[in-house]
Amino acid sequence: MQIEIKPPYLLFLGDEPERSHAKTAVGIAHWRPELCVGQLRLPGSGVDLGFPDMAPADAAAAGAQSLIWGVAGVGGLIPEHWIASLFAAVDAGLDIVAGTHSSLSEIPGLADAANKAGVRLVDIRNPPTDLPIGSGEQRSGRRLLMVGTDCVVGKKFSALAIAKEMSCRGMNCDFRATGQTGIMIAGGGLPIDAVVSDFVSGAAEMLSPENDADHWDVIEGQGSLYHPGYAAVTLGLLHGSQPDGFVICHEAGRTMIEAFPGFQLPTIPQLIEQTIAAGRVTSPDIQCVGISLNTSTLPAKDRAEYLAKISDALGLPCVDPVATGVGPIVDYIVATFD
Amino acid sequence: MQIEIKPPYLLFLGDEPERSHAKTAVGIAHWRPELCVGQLRLPGSGVDLGFPDMAPADAAAAGAQSLIWGVAGVGGLIPEHWIASLFAAVDAGLDIVAGTHSSLSEIPGLADAANKAGVRLVDIRNPPTDLPIGSGEQRSGRRLLMVGTDCVVGKKFSALAIAKEMSCRGMNCDFRATGQTGIMIAGGGLPIDAVVSDFVSGAAEMLSPENDADHWDVIEGQGSLYHPGYAAVTLGLLHGSQPDGFVICHEAGRTMIEAFPGFQLPTIPQLIEQTIAAGRVTSPDIQCVGISLNTSTLPAKDRAEYLAKISDALGLPCVDPVATGVGPIVDYIVATFD
Repeated sequence: MQIEIKPPYLLFLGDEPERSHAKTAVGIAHWRPELCVGQLRLPGSGVDLGFPDMAPADAAAAGAQSLIWGVAGVGGLIPEHWIASLFAAVDAGLDIVAGTHSSLSEIPGLADAANKAGVRLVDIRNPPTDLPIGSGEQRSGRRLLMVGTDCVVGKKFSALAIAKEMSCRGMNCDFRATGQTGIMIAGGGLPIDAVVSDFVSGAAEMLSPENDADHWDVIEGQGSLYHPGYAAVTLGLLHGSQPDGFVICHEAGRTMIEAFPGFQLPTIPQLIEQTIAAGRVTSPDIQCVGISLNTSTLPAKDRAEYLAKISDALGLPCVDPVATGVGPIVDYIVATFD
Repeated sequence: MQIEIKPPYLLFLGDEPERSHAKTAVGIAHWRPELCVGQLRLPGSGVDLGFPDMAPADAAAAGAQSLIWGVAGVGGLIPEHWIASLFAAVDAGLDIVAGTHSSLSEIPGLADAANKAGVRLVDIRNPPTDLPIGSGEQRSGRRLLMVGTDCVVGKKFSALAIAKEMSCRGMNCDFRATGQTGIMIAGGGLPIDAVVSDFVSGAAEMLSPENDADHWDVIEGQGSLYHPGYAAVTLGLLHGSQPDGFVICHEAGRTMIEAFPGFQLPTIPQLIEQTIAAGRVTSPDIQCVGISLNTSTLPAKDRAEYLAKISDALGLPCVDPVATGVGPIVDYIVATFD
């Protein structure tokens, strides 16, 4: 079973002053505004996502099913003065969904209150315990995986943008989330990096199950095959996803693995080659279908030429999902797999 | 912290009739007889490892510190009529060390008895919870990793044989265990496949820490980069081990992944190439130093020619660790890294 979050949502923002610390809520508001009935802010909050301000009881009356913990909190801790809101949410009949480092179940009395109210405390860092070992068996449906040169290079954003573009064109598709923010946005998924290594590829298989032949699962990637800490996660996800296609995600100008001094990023051609070599084990015809670059560090005037140069060199569409959109990648997918 | 098992051992064999179901005890008796003070058998046992038969109290009087659960048990379960021996061991002051699927802590009263007696119930399937994320930082000491074309191709045996050969030559070395039986034999280690995927390479770093410049860690491998279920484990272990050298382990004649129909094994040259491509991320000068083959399925008269052919083709020593010993691989290592 994947994690499932019941919509619609009340987004909890606390009194967080900084929008950059409310990434999860901002992401949900951007990608899934239709899932949100309101926001819950405390005095001093500096974040406004444009939804009606609501107390838990009002949100429940408006149909909300879940309070989403949308802010980071200092060091992942749950501030003392935010806790009353959590009890109010439970009393109003809302599930609480969070991925903070300190567990909801450690707040004295909250688990009991949730039991009594018949609601769930959903910790999206905890994968289910009934995961299978990957079988590698072929399954119907198409799958597209984001593959990064590093962490934090736009894999989630690229996957969401591609899934949205496919949906707009009437294609049959789902975004499949493998990390915390993605799971909040998708309303479900699996925190793949928290899965025991023996079951990573099995978890990835479960996340993108067999489907209609023309259906696309657009799968959020994790880590990098070239990351000294996280490559195991990346390979298990690659094998279990059995992708028909993959998109290379990269930040223009980055040359070293972030926070791991001395580790060089692969070049894009190297990463394509290595992804095919490794991915072939479960997906014999795996191919790269595009490059998605974060070019925000480049002068805007140089962007078009930069993208065109890479596209020409590789014979693949090359986009910045924010600046140019991902249309050319979806064009390429449609042309290749029809 | 790695798992640590206190020697010497009393090997528990129950009334297991089949030697093949006592693999763990047989392995310990073969590789580490000096760690064993006795064996504990129940009426009907068909296994004799040649140690004195002892009750737990006798073994404790002879210095034993741990009772080692040396048999598989049907379906990994702990038979009802074996349980009295476990209580007797606890009462005699022995730790109980097991890796069965049903946990020792589920036996009613045993955990309490262990607490009272001040002994440990050590479940070697449970990795420690304080594992770090892999850093990829270079560390002193030499490391040698076993790399398999598949599971159950002789990785543990090869590592133990190489470590023994190195010891016999007076080299400074340790066998590092990554699986249950290996941990029992080594008296410690980490069950790497039970580690959460984010921490696999970190666990492997912890398992083979920095050491004297001339010290070799000989590391038991797990899985295969070409295994549809377990490759994540294999890659994390490869990255965290940062091996200077690796040995390809393979069963002669096997062409398909065992129990995963339709998945072909890599050729030995393919596996060497892919291991170097992946391993270079944390060990830039990684190289293959030999091939270790289980040739028991071949007619004995064909063995020498078979090994020589592969050795000539690759320019590397090629041995059967049982039939020929691993001397040529250690020769090659000494010549290469001196």
